[in-house]
Amino acid sequence: DRSLKVFSLNSNRQLAEDIASHIGTTLGECTVSAFSDGEIQINIEESIRGCDVYVVQSTCAPVNTHIMELLIMIDALKRASARSINIVMPYYGYARQDRKARSREPIAAKLVADLLETAGASRVITLDLHAPQIQGFFNVPIDHLQGVPILSNYFETKSFEDLVIVSPDHGGVTRARKMADRLKAPIGIIDKRRPRPNVAEVMNIVGNIEGKTAILIDDIIDTAGTITLAANALIENGAKEVYACCTHPVLSGPAIERIDNSKIKELIITNSIPLPEDKQSEKITELSVAPLIGEAIIRIHELQSVSILFD
Amino acid sequence: DRSLKVFSLNSNRQLAEDIASHIGTTLGECTVSAFSDGEIQINIEESIRGCDVYVVQSTCAPVNTHIMELLIMIDALKRASARSINIVMPYYGYARQDRKARSREPIAAKLVADLLETAGASRVITLDLHAPQIQGFFNVPIDHLQGVPILSNYFETKSFEDLVIVSPDHGGVTRARKMADRLKAPIGIIDKRRPRPNVAEVMNIVGNIEGKTAILIDDIIDTAGTITLAANALIENGAKEVYACCTHPVLSGPAIERIDNSKIKELIITNSIPLPEDKQSEKITELSVAPLIGEAIIRIHELQSVSILFD
Ligand SMILES: Nc1ncnc2c1ncn2[C@@H]1O[C@H](COP(=O)(O)O)[C@@H](O)[C@H]1O
Ligand SMILES: Nc1ncnc2c1ncn2[C@@H]1O[C@H](COP(=O)(O)O)[C@@H](O)[C@H]1O
Repeated sequence: DRSLKVFSLNSNRQLAEDIASHIGTTLGECTVSAFSDGEIQINIEESIRGCDVYVVQSTCAPVNTHIMELLIMIDALKRASARSINIVMPYYGYARQDRKARSREPIAAKLVADLLETAGASRVITLDLHAPQIQGFFNVPIDHLQGVPILSNYFETKSFEDLVIVSPDHGGVTRARKMADRLKAPIGIIDKRRPRPNVAEVMNIVGNIEGKTAILIDDIIDTAGTITLAANALIENGAKEVYACCTHPVLSGPAIERIDNSKIKELIITNSIPLPEDKQSEKITELSVAPLIGEAIIRIHELQSVSILFD
Repeated sequence: DRSLKVFSLNSNRQLAEDIASHIGTTLGECTVSAFSDGEIQINIEESIRGCDVYVVQSTCAPVNTHIMELLIMIDALKRASARSINIVMPYYGYARQDRKARSREPIAAKLVADLLETAGASRVITLDLHAPQIQGFFNVPIDHLQGVPILSNYFETKSFEDLVIVSPDHGGVTRARKMADRLKAPIGIIDKRRPRPNVAEVMNIVGNIEGKTAILIDDIIDTAGTITLAANALIENGAKEVYACCTHPVLSGPAIERIDNSKIKELIITNSIPLPEDKQSEKITELSVAPLIGEAIIRIHELQSVSILFD
C-alpha cells in the first residue's frame, strides 16, 4: 500500500485544496515563504519518506518565482526520499516559447521541462498545453488533460438553439472542432489577414454565423486583444450573441477592461490560474478543474491505468 | 583566433559595462524585457555563432527573475551555436542554502548549479562564495575569485596605526585571517553564546581590541543585524573605531537603517550587487570588482592559464 500526499505551493492553493478534498485527503503541511532578501524558504513539516507526492503549482504570474518554488520543492522532496514526485501543473508557463520563430530565440518551454527533470520530477500532469508538442520535451511520463469537456458541459446546460463554435485563429481549429463535436454544432474560423504591410488587419469570417449564438474558444486568453476583436467582428457580421471561453485565464494588462468593453456576453474560464481580486468581472464564470485533476491522480495512483482520461 | 563577446542581463548592467570596457570591448546587443504577463523575453541582436560568450548576471534580488533570465539566456546562446557559454556571476544567490541543516530542507545552491549546467553553461566565474564547497556542486570549471585583496588595498591607503581584523562569527575566521595577513594585523573573533535558552545572546570578544581600529569583515551583509551588533560590542569593549566591509551588499530589510544607527564609521562594499537608489547611505564606500573580473576573463580567454588569480 503506497501512501499519497498532496502539497500546494503558492500559485493556486484553493485549487490544491479542492483537488485534495476530491481525493478524500487534506493538503500536506508545508510552509513556503521568503527570506528578507526574497530568496524562497521551504519547510516541509511532515515526513514524506516513501510516499507518492503530488505537488500542485501553476506557473502563472509571478512566473519566475512560481517556477523556482516548484524546483526548490522538488529538490527538497527528492532529498527527503519521496518515492515519486508528481508535478500537477494545470497552467504551464512559458508554453508559448515553444520553438525558434526567429534566429537566436530561446525555447523556454523546453528549458522548463529540462529544469523540472533536473530537479527530480518523476511525472508531470498538465492541462491544455499551448502546443501539444511540449509533451515531447519531457523524458518522464506526462499526462495531458483536456479542458474542452468541462467547458462543453457548461454550455450544454444552456441548450442554445442555433450554435456555432468559432476558433479565433487557425492554430485553434482542432480545439474548436472538439467542442463542436461535443455540442453537435458547426465550426467557424476567424481568418486574419493583413492586406498590405502597415495596414490594419482584416477579420474575414470563414463559416456561417448569421443569426447564431457563437462560442469563441481559445486555450489562453492573455491581454484579450484577439478574443475581443474576434467577438466584435462576429457581432458586426451578424452573429446573434457571442460567448467566449478558455482554459487558462492569464488576463494580463488591459484584459479585464477589454472584456468588459467588448461584445462578449459571458466569458467562461477554468481555475487553472486563480483570478486575483483586481481581475474580477461580472462577465466571468469560473469552472473548476479540481474533479478532473483529482480523478486523474486517483487513477494514476490506484489503478495505474489512465488511458481513458488522456489523449 | 576566437572571438569574445560580453553580454549583460538585467541585474548589474553598470558592472557589465565596466568589465567590457576593462577588456577593451563593448557589450553585445541583447534586449531582456518582459511580456505583458511577466514572462521573460530575450532577443540577442547579433550573431554569436562560434564565439566565446561571457554573460554577466548576479543572482541578487529579485533573485528568481534573475536566475530565470540567466537560464533562458543560456538556452538561447546554446541554440545560437556559441562556442562556449561562460557565466559571470559575481553574486551567487541561494548560496546560504548549501546544506541540509534540518530534515527535509532543500539544497538550493546545488539546485542552482544543476540548473545552470542543464541550461548549457560551460564555465562559471564567481566571487567569494558563501561556502567554498559550492565549487564542488559543479561539474563544469568554476573560477572562484576573491574580494579580500580589493578590500585590503582600500584599507592599506588609510595607514591605520593600530589595527585588528575581526570576524563577526566563527565561520568567517579564514576570511579575516587572509585580510589580517595582507594588512599585517592581528585578528579578533566575536564569539556569540546563548547562556540559557530564551536568554539574550552574549557577545564575547576573543582577541585584544582595546584602543585599536577594528575592521569587521564578512562575505555577505544581508539585514546587517550581525555586523551592527558586533560593531557596537567592539566599541563598548574599548575599540577606538570600527570599520566594516563585505564583498556582497545584499542589504535587505532594515539594513541601511541599522548601519546608519550603528557605531560603524564606514562600510566598504563591492559592486557585486548594485546598490539601488533607496539603499544609499553616506557611510558606504563602493569598490569595483570590474578590473578583477575583467582580468580573469582576459586570462581565461587569452592565456588559458588562470592559476595566479584563483584559489
Ligand atoms: N508570455 C508571452 N506573451 C505574449 N506573447 C508571447 C509570450 N510568450 C511567447 N510569446 C510569443 O507568442 C508567439 C507564439 O504564440 P503562438 O504563435 O500562438 O504559438 C511567439 O511569437 C512568441 O514570441
Ligand atoms: N536568503 C537567506 N536569508 C537569510 N537566511 C538564509 C537565507 N538562505 C539561507 N539562510 C539560512 O542561513 C543559514 C546558513 O547560513 P550560514 O550558517 O552562515 O552558512 C541556514 O540556517 C539557512 O536557513
